[in-house]
Parts: sequence; structure tokens; C-alpha cells
Amino acid sequence: MPQASGYAAPNPKSTLAPFDFERRETGERDVQIEIKFCGICHSDIHQVRDEWFQGVFPMVPGHEIAGVVASVGDKVTKFKVGDHVGIGCFVDSCRTCVECKAGEEHFCQVKLVQTYNNLDQQGRPTYGGYSDKIVVDEDYVLRIPENLKLDEAAPLMCAGITLWSPLKHWKAGPGKKVAIIGLGGLGHMGVKLAHALGAEVTVLSQSLKKQDDGKRLGADHFYATSDPETFTKLAGTFDLILNTVSAADDWNRLMTLLKRDGTMVVVGAPEHPVPVSAFSVIVGRKSVAGSMIGSIKETQEMLDFCGDHNIASDIETIAMADVNDAYERVLKSDVRYRFVIDLGTLEAAKQAKPEQAAEPKPIGGAGHTVQVG
Amino acid sequence: MPQASGYAAPNPKSTLAPFDFERRETGERDVQIEIKFCGICHSDIHQVRDEWFQGVFPMVPGHEIAGVVASVGDKVTKFKVGDHVGIGCFVDSCRTCVECKAGEEHFCQVKLVQTYNNLDQQGRPTYGGYSDKIVVDEDYVLRIPENLKLDEAAPLMCAGITLWSPLKHWKAGPGKKVAIIGLGGLGHMGVKLAHALGAEVTVLSQSLKKQDDGKRLGADHFYATSDPETFTKLAGTFDLILNTVSAADDWNRLMTLLKRDGTMVVVGAPEHPVPVSAFSVIVGRKSVAGSMIGSIKETQEMLDFCGDHNIASDIETIAMADVNDAYERVLKSDVRYRFVIDLGTLEAAKQAKPEQAAEPKPIGGAGHTVQVG
Repeated sequence: MPQASGYAAPNPKSTLAPFDFERRETGERDVQIEIKFCGICHSDIHQVRDEWFQGVFPMVPGHEIAGVVASVGDKVTKFKVGDHVGIGCFVDSCRTCVECKAGEEHFCQVKLVQTYNNLDQQGRPTYGGYSDKIVVDEDYVLRIPENLKLDEAAPLMCAGITLWSPLKHWKAGPGKKVAIIGLGGLGHMGVKLAHALGAEVTVLSQSLKKQDDGKRLGADHFYATSDPETFTKLAGTFDLILNTVSAADDWNRLMTLLKRDGTMVVVGAPEHPVPVSAFSVIVGRKSVAGSMIGSIKETQEMLDFCGDHNIASDIETIAMADVNDAYERVLKSDVRYRFVIDLGTLEAAKQAKPEQAAEPKPIGGAGHTVQVG
Repeated sequence: MPQASGYAAPNPKSTLAPFDFERRETGERDVQIEIKFCGICHSDIHQVRDEWFQGVFPMVPGHEIAGVVASVGDKVTKFKVGDHVGIGCFVDSCRTCVECKAGEEHFCQVKLVQTYNNLDQQGRPTYGGYSDKIVVDEDYVLRIPENLKLDEAAPLMCAGITLWSPLKHWKAGPGKKVAIIGLGGLGHMGVKLAHALGAEVTVLSQSLKKQDDGKRLGADHFYATSDPETFTKLAGTFDLILNTVSAADDWNRLMTLLKRDGTMVVVGAPEHPVPVSAFSVIVGRKSVAGSMIGSIKETQEMLDFCGDHNIASDIETIAMADVNDAYERVLKSDVRYRFVIDLGTLEAAKQAKPEQAAEPKPIGGAGHTVQVG
């Protein structure tokens, strides 16, 4: 079994620390990928801290993976050694349910195998992209266009597709007015993609602090939600609102900004249910909808579109050793706009911090090699 | 000015009582209608009791109007004396805003003139269908197919179009599974229309009490929401849910019954905002939407469809004098499925109840003839 190395949370109360484990042998339809970069998604933090549901520990987070094909199984036809590839939020699905057959495998009804914090079809824990390698069935591997830098492309695998899928599904394009609520890791991708699709893009941010950035990224307009005037001025304006804010915002107030038949799509998930007034949807036949990442097909289309339009994420690259500090900065929204871990720094991080062996031992199990430090 | 006679609430605290007033002269584009029947909509009760907003009193309710053309103005081209016609929830709109120009005048952004409890473009109070005649611009008059009985057709003007519009907008038809939540005045029209459109129709009612009725009306399946098994069995079933229940139901529980890309359309408005979990919409890319009556064009299409399919409302016809008792029964859901007032009984009601002159006088004003009893 190939030895792999990465950073894991041994339990929900500990910071991330070095962790060695095994990947599966490269099967005949598998691609083994040398991971070069992995983005830090806010959901990584929710999951390693068990804020959503009880997790599988030790947990190697990371589902914004960009790397290079290191080897391929005998029956792999889509990839060859040296190809630039990406892995997103899932690495397998049942392939037989109505959703999988419809090419909507991210909604698999039987078993969507998430890239980490999950068990695969054989019951083995999955480990994510804060690591040096990963083995994935070729059907769940994405091709990253050669003209994109791998570090900047990594966040496309989650943040990119999360915004792309609703933009395409609700037909953002020329003649359409799109609002992006929140200019963070998700929102900044929304601005770039909606702009490249030809829509008229407005950013609604808490304040005007990021206004220059917003316009540089492609926004036509920029307004502060803290200014009540914004809601008077923009009433009935938008065909589509993509709400990336996971704090429980006032959805009814945002709905007033929609045109007739407009849709607000929630892609940031507030922890608690949000009150929706029936009149917010009845008057103007409006919708509150949701969207969750995208299918493999959609993700490849998004990556190809990004290659054609030279779009990637605005990132701050960090060393593996700095991941815990980066988490704290994410929680303070102190990042423009995505942290990406350079896995080339993993070995140095392990060498430099032998004292991490003194950290609480992770909860071992499942017959895996568990080693901290 | 033509003298009109009807029943009005003099103020929000009083029951309805006889009321004489004036209608406008029949203008060159106007149709004067002899009202034969008027349905009782739950919103009539909300409005005469000032439960939604401060009303215009004395208030003659009624926006499910069916009658016969009594006279027409010189330039009227669409109607002639003797035609069977209907009036729904509005009798005019601005005709110039983007919504009116798009043929979506029920969403008029400038001035939708509601059939009652409103002021018209000249600032005169509008009086509804609990009366013997009404004068309306021909563009806001609907043709009722001759094969439909006028009493049974009256509720099509509000209950019918309220369900028809979302069924058409969200493409109910062959191969689509539609759930109707609540089998009342709205719901029973939803069952008939969805069935006639070729959809597979399921009624979700509090209990199984109305099961036989539901199937007779066209439902393929009937389930009780009080039975938890219902939610297990029907999880992920429906393309479209029309929620006619105005009590604040558990929307998140209903959302579990939708397929991927399914929509729950709210047509009954709970008084308070309803909590919506982001996960209810994110997982499966679902929507919570709303719908409000329909345009003149849609309403005519609905009436023509009802004529072709011989569809109308299941009603209980009452005399004008019994309207206050009928209100109490509506509040107890004790009606299958719509009360319709026979305006032929108006004169008798006025003769029989001279003591109603002792009721509190309505708030007079606006230079109108106001007379109680």
C-alpha cells in the first residue's frame, strides 16, 4: 500500500498535526495523483471541529485538490502521467441510482463518497488533500487546463463549482442582473464567473472596504448592506442573487431586491433555519433555492471555461506548517480570497515540528497506521 | 350614477349588513355586469376584519364574481349584453409599467386596483362582488365558457387561478408528480386542475377524512400529514408541491418530499415568517417559491381550459342573508369546498332584516351614498 503523509486533526478538540497513513493501491481504473496544492475551505474548519455532524477521526481535511498524475491503472483512458488534475468534494458515488444515472452524482441517493471525513464503498475512511498523494477512480478526476496555475486552480474544485453550478442552472448571462452577497472565497469566484458569463454583476458586501477589489474582479456595481439606502435603491433589480453568507442574514430583506420571477440561491449555509415570510415569495413569484457544489460534468465544464477565460482564484499560498494559523484567519475573514496550502512544504513542516508528537494522540482505529509527528 | 346594493362590513368589528351605494357610469370601454354569484374567499374574512392591513370601510367584499353583461360602452369590442363573464381579484392596473406591458398586470408596480378594499385610479373606493352589479373596464373582464354553471364558475376567479398559475408556470403535466397540501377551497381546485393537466396528483391532508372526496376530485393518492409514515414513504417523490395551507406548517418537513430540482410553491400565506433550513434547499437544489393569483391572460386560459374539460368548483350555494354564518363555517373549515352567494337572494335579505339598520353605522366618507338597512 502506498505510504502517504499529511496533516490531520486527531480529534475535534486538537489543532492539525503531521499524520502518516496509507492510500489504496492504484486499481486498474485509478489515478494516483501527486498533490501539489490544496485550498482551505471554511467547511474544512466546520468539519475538523465537528460543528456539523460527528466526524471520522483522525481527519485529513481538504477538497480543493490540484496536482499532477503520478501513475495510472491499466484501464485508465482519460489521463496519463504528468497531466494536471483536480479532485473536488467527492471521490466516488453509487453510479446506479437515478441521480448518478442522470449525471447528477453529487446528489447520489445511495452513497456519495466525500473526499474526506467519510467512509468509502468498502468502509475505509477517506482522507483529503492536506496530504502528498491521493488515489481516485478516473471518473471522479477532473482535468485542469494547462494554462491555469495549479495553486490558483485548486479553489475552483469547491469554491469555483459552488458558484458556477447555480450561475449556469439559473442562466446567468448577457442581459441578466446578478447579485453576489458576500465577497469571500465563494463570492469572489461568483463575481469572476458571472462577469465572464456576460451578466451584469453587483456585489453586496457588509461595507465598502472591498469595493476596489470587487470592481477589479469584475463587478459592475458595489453596495454596502449596512447602508439602508442600498435596499431602497436596488429594490426589484436582480434576476438572480447568489447568497454566499453563512451568517443568518435577513433573507426577506434580500428578497426585496429580486425582480419578478427572481431567485435567491443559498450557497452558504446558516447553522439555524432562517425565517422566510410567505409574502417575500408570493409577491413577484420569487424563489428561495439552494445549490450544492456540482456534478463531475459541470465541474469539468467550469474548469474548461476557466481555462478559456483564464479565470482562477485569488489566493494566498501558505506553508503546511501555517495551516492552524490560517484557520484562525479564515474565521476572522482575514484572507483575500482563499488560502492554498503548498504541499511542497509538507516535508519541511514535519521535520521542523517534532514537538507535535507531544500533541494529544488521535483516536486511532480502522486498522490504519496512525502516527502523529 | 347607477345605484347598487350589496352587503358591507361597516367597520372591522361589525358583521356584514345590507348597504346601498353607487357604481360609476358605464364608460365607453366599460362593461356593466349583473352579478349572479360571488364566492367567499378566506381572504374576504381577513380583510373585513382588518387582519392584514388597514382596510377601506364600509367594505363590500368579494372577488370571485360571476355574472351576465347588462350593458356595454360604445367602444367595447370583446363583450356584448348577455355574455357570461367573471371578475377576479383586480379591476384595473397602471397599464404602463414593465409588469403590465409584460402581461403580468397582477404584479403591477404602480397601481393594481383590487376589486374591493382599495381605491381606484381616481381615488374612489372599490366595492366587490357581494352586490348586485359592477362596472369594469373590458380589459379586466373575463369570459366564462357557456357550458359552465355560473355559480360553480365563480370560485375559478380566485381559487381557480391561484392554483392554475403555478401549475402552468412550474409545468405540471404528464410524467410530473404533484402534491397538493390541504384540501380546501384552493386545494380542491388544485386537484381538479392538476389531474386534468395530466399530472399524477397526491393530496396531503391533515387526516384521511376527505380521502374519498379527494379521489373523486381526481387525486391518484391521498395521505395524512398526521401520520409520520407518510414522510418516510413519500420522501423525494414530488416535482412540485402546492402548499395551500395558511397555518404555519413545517415547511422543512414538506421539502423532504421533493425530488431534486423540485419546488414547493406557497399559495396560502402564513401570518408569520416560517423557518427554512438552508439544507432543505441546498441538498437536491430545491426551491421554496410563491405565487399570487394570475394575469388576465392566464385567467382567461384557465377559464377556457375549464370549459374544455368541464371543470368548476364544488360549491355550497348560500343566500345573502347567511353570509355571516358562512364566515364562521369557513373559519372552522366546515365547507366543501367553497361557499357561493346567490345574489338573487339579496333583495329578500334586505327586506327580511330591517332590524339591521340598528347595526353600527359604517364609517361614511368619500362623498358616497352610505346607507345601512
